[in-house]
Amino acid sequence: MVYLTRLEHFNAAHKLYNPAWSREKNDEVFGVCANENWHGHNFDLYITIKGEIDPDTGFLFDAKKLSRLIKEHVVNKLDHKNLNVDVPFLTGKMCSTENLAVAIWQQLQPHLPANVQLHCVKLYETQRIYVEYFG
Amino acid sequence: MVYLTRLEHFNAAHKLYNPAWSREKNDEVFGVCANENWHGHNFDLYITIKGEIDPDTGFLFDAKKLSRLIKEHVVNKLDHKNLNVDVPFLTGKMCSTENLAVAIWQQLQPHLPANVQLHCVKLYETQRIYVEYFG
Amino acid sequence: MVYLTRLEHFNAAHKLYNPAWSREKNDEVFGVCANENWHGHNFDLYITIKGEIDPDTGFLFDAKKLSRLIKEHVVNKLDHKNLNVDVPFLTGKMCSTENLAVAIWQQLQPHLPANVQLHCVKLYETQRIYVEYFG
Amino acid sequence: MVYLTRLEHFNAAHKLYNPAWSREKNDEVFGVCANENWHGHNFDLYITIKGEIDPDTGFLFDAKKLSRLIKEHVVNKLDHKNLNVDVPFLTGKMCSTENLAVAIWQQLQPHLPANVQLHCVKLYETQRIYVEYFG
Amino acid sequence: MVYLTRLEHFNAAHKLYNPAWSREKNDEVFGVCANENWHGHNFDLYITIKGEIDPDTGFLFDAKKLSRLIKEHVVNKLDHKNLNVDVPFLTGKMCSTENLAVAIWQQLQPHLPANVQLHCVKLYETQRIYVEYFG
Amino acid sequence: MVYLTRLEHFNAAHKLYNPAWSREKNDEVFGVCANENWHGHNFDLYITIKGEIDPDTGFLFDAKKLSRLIKEHVVNKLDHKNLNVDVPFLTGKMCSTENLAVAIWQQLQPHLPANVQLHCVKLYETQRIYVEYFG
Repeated sequence: MVYLTRLEHFNAAHKLYNPAWSREKNDEVFGVCANENWHGHNFDLYITIKGEIDPDTGFLFDAKKLSRLIKEHVVNKLDHKNLNVDVPFLTGKMCSTENLAVAIWQQLQPHLPANVQLHCVKLYETQRIYVEYFG
Repeated sequence: MVYLTRLEHFNAAHKLYNPAWSREKNDEVFGVCANENWHGHNFDLYITIKGEIDPDTGFLFDAKKLSRLIKEHVVNKLDHKNLNVDVPFLTGKMCSTENLAVAIWQQLQPHLPANVQLHCVKLYETQRIYVEYFG
Repeated sequence: MVYLTRLEHFNAAHKLYNPAWSREKNDEVFGVCANENWHGHNFDLYITIKGEIDPDTGFLFDAKKLSRLIKEHVVNKLDHKNLNVDVPFLTGKMCSTENLAVAIWQQLQPHLPANVQLHCVKLYETQRIYVEYFG
Repeated sequence: MVYLTRLEHFNAAHKLYNPAWSREKNDEVFGVCANENWHGHNFDLYITIKGEIDPDTGFLFDAKKLSRLIKEHVVNKLDHKNLNVDVPFLTGKMCSTENLAVAIWQQLQPHLPANVQLHCVKLYETQRIYVEYFG
Repeated sequence: MVYLTRLEHFNAAHKLYNPAWSREKNDEVFGVCANENWHGHNFDLYITIKGEIDPDTGFLFDAKKLSRLIKEHVVNKLDHKNLNVDVPFLTGKMCSTENLAVAIWQQLQPHLPANVQLHCVKLYETQRIYVEYFG
Repeated sequence: MVYLTRLEHFNAAHKLYNPAWSREKNDEVFGVCANENWHGHNFDLYITIKGEIDPDTGFLFDAKKLSRLIKEHVVNKLDHKNLNVDVPFLTGKMCSTENLAVAIWQQLQPHLPANVQLHCVKLYETQRIYVEYFG
């Protein structure tokens, strides 16, 4: 069993805002992250898969194909978007990095081939904060 | 003459959009950067000053004081903001990284002490794109 | 279950020296790290916690609050200090990165809220050497 | 139980080419990585060991000694080499990063002292692709 | 006047070998870099241009277009290649990072638009060695 | 004319303290940096030289020889040292990063060969603060 990780990037706007709460409570809980006019981040996304090495190629899975799958099913739907407004699979969810990591797992997992298991979605919101989700 | 550089960060939303143009022309020129619902970045800001070393302290200028000046006059006005909407000193300007670097110079320069010269504003929009302005 | 990691920094002096040994044996075992006049490092500290996502906030735990807890109970007691001399919770311990990581766990763990578990203390002594402790 | 990681580097040439296949099939499967005149990488190698802390030193294992073991048994055999041609322990294997990580484990593991276990070989082929092997 | 920099990557094999010299002299001068079976690197290429900001776009030059020009005229000719064998514009030159930086300048400079000046080619051979050329 | 840069590292203890001042004034001016028991840093040192390319080697100067000169004349005298106590060429100077960069220039410059000019000493005290000196 080996693990292969691929890094991709996307840039997006978001805000943290619970519509069930008042403006005041949102400001109190989320601080500047609740700015109603949005802010944004350069997200770094590490996708780790695991499985057996194919003896003919030496690959667990072709890293270029993995990159294309991540771009098709995740990055192209998030890059240069507003996460609260433009992304159907995030509708109705709090746009935290935690929820975003879980949603990315759900988007990508069905599209991986049968011999490969998704192991980890690791998502950096800034260079100092990241979330990991293992399914 | 020595040069001292301090790195600060801010996260912000923006879009590239020229209101004198049609939606179609904006999309053609700016592509995904013109998304009307905004996107965002983690900006890395390097401020470089130059001058003589003070023999009593060994400092050109106290890096902690430089950090406070950058935060007070620049970072606090940009962090977790929408650059097109929330920042008075950017009103009416295209929110490109080039214009942002020039505007940061204009904000910070008047607040540096007389024995220190601002040398460079270096602003990373992503890890692969940065702008430098030397006044 | 998701994992959230926060990076903090501190700068400190230390030396590796076992007082039960002769100067010669310390030099032989620890080499330049035993320099009696100390040396120092910029330590990078990654704290990882785990738990369930709060549906109201989308957070495992507010990363800003995590930062404040790490600063209050760990970083403020280590930053710009001499680890062998200035830090009560390290008294009588060898000031290795291994022991420092374990001690940081012991300092931080009691102050985390009940719904959050400390998962990992990861401590970089240099860009090429780090220690992880999982409790 | 603590974990200690040491980073080392090596630069090498390789190509991905299965001699049981035609030139056309190799090009189809491996793309530019099959260039018959080779290409190359700066590999970053993270070696993680685990075990108990020695109370006399505060060390799991001396990081300088770990560095020397990695250099002697791994880096010196790979650095500035052609992985397909110059490395006896890779003869007859596909020179993928997956196979290289497994081979590095096999080279290093017998030379670690009895109180230390090899935990992970993590090998970056580029800043965006890495493989982990846990034995 | 502002400066805009774009980072691109390529991976390539090379060796340092002066055909006018004996094998022994090449080994003496270039050491392991003269390995006749090649070695390789992940090169990081920073291209800096300078000029005036276009008031309609806020751009010195569209960073995406700059990326495409660098890829078309430089990266696509070097990536996954053997620098000594596969690159017509390097034929007959010593494949040092210095010569490569100068050759990249000569390849790219004629293709920049008239209102933009090439300012610097900065080329990392490893994370610890880079060359800059200003024309 | 090309520029070649080499990165080296050293770890050291220091404090900022002017012996002509009272304890109180030192604390007021230097804050935690004046801790009498020292603190320390991982310093990153970038040395840039400039000159013409040698047509026989393609080199401005052999980067391995440059590394050896930096280690012999600078790094070996600073690494795992106390900058205030252990370093003859810093005696009587304030141990600021500014003064350290100037002193490194003075140590290294006389040992470079005639066809090479020292261009810049760039010294990182932390990842957020660096000093440059151009002679």
